[in-house]
Amino acid sequence: MRGVAIIGIGCTKVGEHWDKSLRDLAVEASLRAMEDAGLYDADYVLVGNMMSGYLQNQEHLGALVADSLGLQGAGAAKVEAACASGGMAVHMGCQLIASGAADSVLVVGAEKMTDATTPEVTKALAMAEDQEYSAYTGASFIGLNALVARAYMKAYGVEPEDMALFSVICHKHALDNEFAQFRFPITVEAVMNSPIVADPLHLLECAGIGDGAAAVLLASLDGARKIADAPVELLASTVSTDKFSLHQRDDLTSFKAARASAEAAFRRAGLRAEDIDVLEVHDASSALGLIALEDLGFAERGKAAELIRDGGIEIGGRIPTNTFGGLKARGHPVGATGVYQIVELTRQLRGEAGKNQVGGAERGYAQNIGGAGTTITAHILGRVD
Amino acid sequence: MRGVAIIGIGCTKVGEHWDKSLRDLAVEASLRAMEDAGLYDADYVLVGNMMSGYLQNQEHLGALVADSLGLQGAGAAKVEAACASGGMAVHMGCQLIASGAADSVLVVGAEKMTDATTPEVTKALAMAEDQEYSAYTGASFIGLNALVARAYMKAYGVEPEDMALFSVICHKHALDNEFAQFRFPITVEAVMNSPIVADPLHLLECAGIGDGAAAVLLASLDGARKIADAPVELLASTVSTDKFSLHQRDDLTSFKAARASAEAAFRRAGLRAEDIDVLEVHDASSALGLIALEDLGFAERGKAAELIRDGGIEIGGRIPTNTFGGLKARGHPVGATGVYQIVELTRQLRGEAGKNQVGGAERGYAQNIGGAGTTITAHILGRVD
Repeated sequence: MRGVAIIGIGCTKVGEHWDKSLRDLAVEASLRAMEDAGLYDADYVLVGNMMSGYLQNQEHLGALVADSLGLQGAGAAKVEAACASGGMAVHMGCQLIASGAADSVLVVGAEKMTDATTPEVTKALAMAEDQEYSAYTGASFIGLNALVARAYMKAYGVEPEDMALFSVICHKHALDNEFAQFRFPITVEAVMNSPIVADPLHLLECAGIGDGAAAVLLASLDGARKIADAPVELLASTVSTDKFSLHQRDDLTSFKAARASAEAAFRRAGLRAEDIDVLEVHDASSALGLIALEDLGFAERGKAAELIRDGGIEIGGRIPTNTFGGLKARGHPVGATGVYQIVELTRQLRGEAGKNQVGGAERGYAQNIGGAGTTITAHILGRVD
Repeated sequence: MRGVAIIGIGCTKVGEHWDKSLRDLAVEASLRAMEDAGLYDADYVLVGNMMSGYLQNQEHLGALVADSLGLQGAGAAKVEAACASGGMAVHMGCQLIASGAADSVLVVGAEKMTDATTPEVTKALAMAEDQEYSAYTGASFIGLNALVARAYMKAYGVEPEDMALFSVICHKHALDNEFAQFRFPITVEAVMNSPIVADPLHLLECAGIGDGAAAVLLASLDGARKIADAPVELLASTVSTDKFSLHQRDDLTSFKAARASAEAAFRRAGLRAEDIDVLEVHDASSALGLIALEDLGFAERGKAAELIRDGGIEIGGRIPTNTFGGLKARGHPVGATGVYQIVELTRQLRGEAGKNQVGGAERGYAQNIGGAGTTITAHILGRVD
């Protein structure tokens, strides 16, 4: 199995891009990744996207983006796994390199959500849930997040302020990041005073709605050494799923797919949580951030709040987390999120993260979740010396 | 690179399944494939589907189908490439085996189109085209097929009756196939007397609308030899794309992506067109069937009509084609079509095709097209002795 490396990264700012189409965003991020790599070519183009059929009435995004980039002839497809579409697209890109089918793969995650009305976006998000059962009852995604948050708080005596702090730190990390959507500081008090979206979750601890695209250019590790100044290796790329909906599971306070994908990734990479220097988790709501820290082995069960209170997830802390702002402050353009995570880890491992640089970062971990903990990808990245 | 083999196949009848959901269809085909293999397991579940977001308001099909099959823990994703979604899903499944990430992959193509109104389905199909340019003008997919047909007829002096004959033979092949949608004979005269859908194409030479699912269970070639009585090897799996829309291309009478994917597939397999015993082509309209025969090297340019008139694509002819009925008579549940093709070739190579058996078939070729010749996959299958 051939090693896989990242030789180029690029992204757009997450925000309300009234002047750009979904294609424009995907192309902008892709061109930046190719410029970054100094290689304007790819054997395949994979697009991570969830909502384009419903929101843009546009499918066939793989070939559409490939053509727009002048890459006619490349293999192309859209990869969809709800909010884990980006992570799954990276995962499938790795397979194309590892199998030998491709020497270079452009993976671009793209989503455009702000052209639609809020009910339309809420409906589109609910397509990650089972339409014949749970979504049919009117369950929204943030409502399902709230069920998880409530169960988690009750199980471990976690206070609302403990969860709010996670989002406060994400906002702090986004302040100096030109590509982040929400670049303003918030306080725990501000979170607690913000409107309840779905009890117990407040507006300021839930990921917002945004447009954005992020791209990575993958190559074989051997090829990357020749092309890139500072390639970053994908030490592991794994995925696991769980019973589809929350009502089917025994425990809402931990995600089996998170634990399984993490275990497989650490085994593949020959590493443990202690070896990771920088972390990206899928904080669609603050509660998911805390649960991720525990599921991935960075905090003991029920102890994530303690780690956060002790400054453990800030720059300079034990495990700097969501250094780009996370889903909360970087923004969560659904199908793009998993690729934004890989972009951020690559910046960190290259030492290009500016004011948010984690000193001496050598290995990073990204967790991307689709549905209510249903499809979860894990990527471990490492510097190539 | 590990070899890949098919150890199980299954499908539903194509038709109007009012009593079954998209999930039901996917599960039914999958269970048949697993039963056929005698292996109720898979490391990954890939779902080829194009329209579920718009027509069923259901995304996240990968995990949904995996969960419904009791395969929680498996990796899962939806793969979309318009009408080539099925072929692309098989292609990505091959990469998962070849890379070593999986020992078994269930690929299921599924589409449910008859619950929607005709305008809705027409709109869903047009999502394969560029919404900001061509689809925006009101171009329907069959309208684009008609442009191709007109150009092809003009370039080579092909008569309407020559094209109609392709669909007549597809219907003939479907007669004895319990899984085909349209099991009745038609004549060239009937085609010519049927309503014009988009000039010069008649109703009876255009693929209809249907629901259906088809599944294949893939394994490594070495693993397959231990599990299956008669594994079939995937000798090649390739994909190519072209400029996205017809108006961007120099020539409408041949698809560059068809030629490129075929050339790559034949090279990979070390074979030529002459070595193929049974063929599946993407006859969304009769014209595409003729063009495919030429693009893939089974007829000289402009000579497909001659091959067809000479009985060349019938059972017992030079290159028996669409022995399951093709898109026209088997039916064209969009995201499932590419997988139905692989199911049929596998039946042929195993000698299980009943009255439609091509004697001594050892190698088969499948062509699956997404958009107006935009994304084209090629699969070459061979018997394992």
